[in-house]
Amino acid sequence: MTEIVADTVLEEGVPDQPLGAAPAGVKHMKWWGWGLEGVAFHHEDKPGFAPFVVSAVDLDLNVVEPGEAPDFAALEVPEGRAPEALLTALRDAVGAEYVVTADLDRVVHTYGKSVRDLIRIRAGQLGRVPDAVVYPADEDEVRAVVALAVERDAVLIPFGGGSNISGSLEAPVHETRAVISLDMGRLDALLDIDEDSGLARIQAGAQGPRIEEQLTARGWTLGHFPDSFTHSTLGGWIATRSSGMQSDKFGDIADITRGLRLVRPDGVVVLRPLPSTSTGPSVREMILGSEGRLGVITEATVQVHRLPEKRVILGYLFKTFSDGLQAMKEIAESDATPSVTRVSDGGESRMSFATAKASRSLGSRIQKGLFQFLEGRGWNLDEIALSFVGYEGGPELVARNQAIVKRIIKKHHGLLVGTGPGVLYDQKKFDTPYIRDFLLDRGATADVSETAAPWSKLQGVYDAVTTAARDAFDRLGVVGWVMCHLSHSYHSGACLYFTFAFKQAGEPLAQYDTVKSAIQQAFIDAGGTLSHHHAVGVEHSPWLEQDISPEGVVLMRGLFDAADPGRNLNPGKIIHAAPAAPAE
Amino acid sequence: MTEIVADTVLEEGVPDQPLGAAPAGVKHMKWWGWGLEGVAFHHEDKPGFAPFVVSAVDLDLNVVEPGEAPDFAALEVPEGRAPEALLTALRDAVGAEYVVTADLDRVVHTYGKSVRDLIRIRAGQLGRVPDAVVYPADEDEVRAVVALAVERDAVLIPFGGGSNISGSLEAPVHETRAVISLDMGRLDALLDIDEDSGLARIQAGAQGPRIEEQLTARGWTLGHFPDSFTHSTLGGWIATRSSGMQSDKFGDIADITRGLRLVRPDGVVVLRPLPSTSTGPSVREMILGSEGRLGVITEATVQVHRLPEKRVILGYLFKTFSDGLQAMKEIAESDATPSVTRVSDGGESRMSFATAKASRSLGSRIQKGLFQFLEGRGWNLDEIALSFVGYEGGPELVARNQAIVKRIIKKHHGLLVGTGPGVLYDQKKFDTPYIRDFLLDRGATADVSETAAPWSKLQGVYDAVTTAARDAFDRLGVVGWVMCHLSHSYHSGACLYFTFAFKQAGEPLAQYDTVKSAIQQAFIDAGGTLSHHHAVGVEHSPWLEQDISPEGVVLMRGLFDAADPGRNLNPGKIIHAAPAAPAE
Repeated sequence: MTEIVADTVLEEGVPDQPLGAAPAGVKHMKWWGWGLEGVAFHHEDKPGFAPFVVSAVDLDLNVVEPGEAPDFAALEVPEGRAPEALLTALRDAVGAEYVVTADLDRVVHTYGKSVRDLIRIRAGQLGRVPDAVVYPADEDEVRAVVALAVERDAVLIPFGGGSNISGSLEAPVHETRAVISLDMGRLDALLDIDEDSGLARIQAGAQGPRIEEQLTARGWTLGHFPDSFTHSTLGGWIATRSSGMQSDKFGDIADITRGLRLVRPDGVVVLRPLPSTSTGPSVREMILGSEGRLGVITEATVQVHRLPEKRVILGYLFKTFSDGLQAMKEIAESDATPSVTRVSDGGESRMSFATAKASRSLGSRIQKGLFQFLEGRGWNLDEIALSFVGYEGGPELVARNQAIVKRIIKKHHGLLVGTGPGVLYDQKKFDTPYIRDFLLDRGATADVSETAAPWSKLQGVYDAVTTAARDAFDRLGVVGWVMCHLSHSYHSGACLYFTFAFKQAGEPLAQYDTVKSAIQQAFIDAGGTLSHHHAVGVEHSPWLEQDISPEGVVLMRGLFDAADPGRNLNPGKIIHAAPAAPAE
Repeated sequence: MTEIVADTVLEEGVPDQPLGAAPAGVKHMKWWGWGLEGVAFHHEDKPGFAPFVVSAVDLDLNVVEPGEAPDFAALEVPEGRAPEALLTALRDAVGAEYVVTADLDRVVHTYGKSVRDLIRIRAGQLGRVPDAVVYPADEDEVRAVVALAVERDAVLIPFGGGSNISGSLEAPVHETRAVISLDMGRLDALLDIDEDSGLARIQAGAQGPRIEEQLTARGWTLGHFPDSFTHSTLGGWIATRSSGMQSDKFGDIADITRGLRLVRPDGVVVLRPLPSTSTGPSVREMILGSEGRLGVITEATVQVHRLPEKRVILGYLFKTFSDGLQAMKEIAESDATPSVTRVSDGGESRMSFATAKASRSLGSRIQKGLFQFLEGRGWNLDEIALSFVGYEGGPELVARNQAIVKRIIKKHHGLLVGTGPGVLYDQKKFDTPYIRDFLLDRGATADVSETAAPWSKLQGVYDAVTTAARDAFDRLGVVGWVMCHLSHSYHSGACLYFTFAFKQAGEPLAQYDTVKSAIQQAFIDAGGTLSHHHAVGVEHSPWLEQDISPEGVVLMRGLFDAADPGRNLNPGKIIHAAPAAPAE
């Protein structure tokens, strides 16, 4: 029924491998890349991939050899600088075995998994490595650790699955105080389902698969499937305002989250689950997106849904991305209620076809026949836009939604191509980060940047961003690639999700900054937001004033300063500021 | 098509009458009651009303005479105490004619329209009357006034339509600084419609009818119809987290509001319209519900919808309220997407039948025949629950939703009774406050209190609140009445809206407090919120800590203190605090 685990890309299977001194049951990703040790992208069964890569970023996979896997032993890991008294107090609070100072654990908790993080860690640029990793068992232990951090003037950084790509997990590089990474991995239980209300209480450290496994066993689903799903947590989703692939139906995590518990130095914010409330400025919506700056989220009560009777993803082709955008807008305006609306531009569609396995229909002779037919009708194959629309619910609803969408697609001269692309999508949906690592291994930088804007501005955002990226590639003198899809439709607009890549030729971080900055600035200038669902962190904070206005930042800064006067709670995220002076 | 103006209850028509020295075009309600001068509820054509009232609150309308309309000349209005220099500066900012110090204007801006407000103002208890009423023409003038208020250490209270019932508009009674009421009535324009995105920019001072009149002229609707619609403003809705009757389809104002402008002492918070964004704690959701404590909302960009092809409201009867609650829950769980789901308990249903005009079907012999039939089938007429469900959209959607609802209603032994109750509802939907004033004129206190809770807790909230209200009536030794409806359904719960009334016998405010407090406490104890859409103000602030927890209040207080260190912006609302010491 509900297919959630991707047709994986295992090269050799060593899953569930605990890392370093982490407690049993707490899984971490590779210290130097995305995903589990032993799992990687490969293209042997995808004949279109190598030709695509050479055309896109001038990287010949038949020639270039992957770099050596980084050697942990060669890393220079700075000594931990937590005072022994602090470590003793932490051990008293959570148990000695759950305060880990081993280098491998500390390195795993230094960064998230942005391409900037991977470039730095592979180059041995470790920045401010946390001094201790603490694994609390429950909310009481979290309370003890938070109180200790403030009393002893340490810095506390909550850590979920470690999948963040906006720099939300790293300590300020010049931080002189002790830095504690608070790993929430042991708080991973489904506590309760209120079946009458469609509400589940779930601990914040539970990762996506663990959540769905516990819910589906009882006939429910959260319906929240971000790209990071396999390695991200409920608490992380809330702290960064995540959005999942089926958000058209299930909502963003901000909609899904009804009740919350947030541990603060002097107590716990307890927000009871409410469908809606009129109690002043929303504290719930202050905690959403707070990235640890207000405290530590320990659990949430979230909307859950009974597993749908039927779930279908249909693929469609449009002559151009603009046709697809227009059709998605009209679907959002219509009486249809699909679970997914998505359309890729010409570039991303070509990449999708190129990463199809040889055995899949769209990589086969049928695909070739279809493309010849379309070419005969005047379609430019480089511009074909692959779309899919997802339908979930009772059979009647699914049929009615398909019928409405069919009329709209037809109006825009789109073609139904069946369930093939949907299968392909389900196959690949959680794999993109592995492809990024594959390219990085071979000397190409690839990353993503996404925004949201009103429908009227999406074409303008698209044009501005692709132009900005290409101009940046030109300035750098590199062969680069930028592609895009629309996803996450709302009444008034949608998300545009861009992927860009280029062959490294110079200082990788400076190159990356040139392209990334150009794209972010284009978002803002064209009426989009700095991020639709990747949070602010330190990566996007330079654009915050341009997005929510300087006075908007004044309000937010006031909240942070009042909530954390000692700057102990993940300082420097969302809004930059000078680090606090060390305590006397 | 979309019927928005009620079948009114005009006794004698003197609408559109500007009051006192208010600028042309700015409408105010009566200084002593709800609505326009010359408009009142009457029951001559509603034969069931008098018998209902005597049974409910022991008030014999054939005997009791309404009190005299209050005499403004008899009011002792305290002298304004704004320093002349401040008045001069305000006149320089907005023009002399737009700074009004006439008593009538000052009194109109002293309170909102809660029953507490009406009891006080009719008794000549004026509290802290504002010293000046200022009518800015545009955002620049608002900026000048806000800056002046802070520079000169005055108190600034934004005023929309004046319909608030939570005490959000009154100055602290011991406030020694100058108090300025900032009437937003001149900012009432629809500025722009982005037709591609379904977004409209509208000025904050526009009242409901003015908004819909401007939108419908261009084929659009906001779809936001709170009970206060005829006398409340967009800015007021946002500042108090309003919800309209069709919120099941259109969302609460918190969902509808995408972009915002908020004037602060040092600048303007500008939030561009975005369908969704991941930019840290939501500043948009801080401004929503802020009741003037963060600044003055001058305009919003809101979701608008094309006028629906079809709109139907169907009435249903259930044997009991519990059956109705269960059915509404199942509708929310189903694939149906109605615009309205509403069910009244036995008491409210009887009141609905009692206020029907003699000519309406449900007041007629057909109704009697139906009731005899139901009695024959074992229904208790006192417990019959009147429900209606609204359908909007294309004919296909309307038909499909009706079919799904029909199956659910049938499962719960409900009966379709056609469009009659819907007509009745459309007739009465904006009239309730007039009935409250009618009763108050005759010595009975009537008021409303509403909450929201998860589906699993609604029956418990209902039982607890009705018991608490009846216990309070008993303690007071009065004949009292409490009734309820469910409205505003969500995935995980709904709003319960209670109306209560009793014959005055003693000190009206103390009596009111006894009943109101008992109901509010029952909300919290049974798992509901202090208000679903009536805001906090000073009326509900005693329950804020119990609702969002003391640490939740700490976060909110931190925001307010940082945003308004001088306590110039509507101080004392939402969170109580001692008034600031007067400036030297």
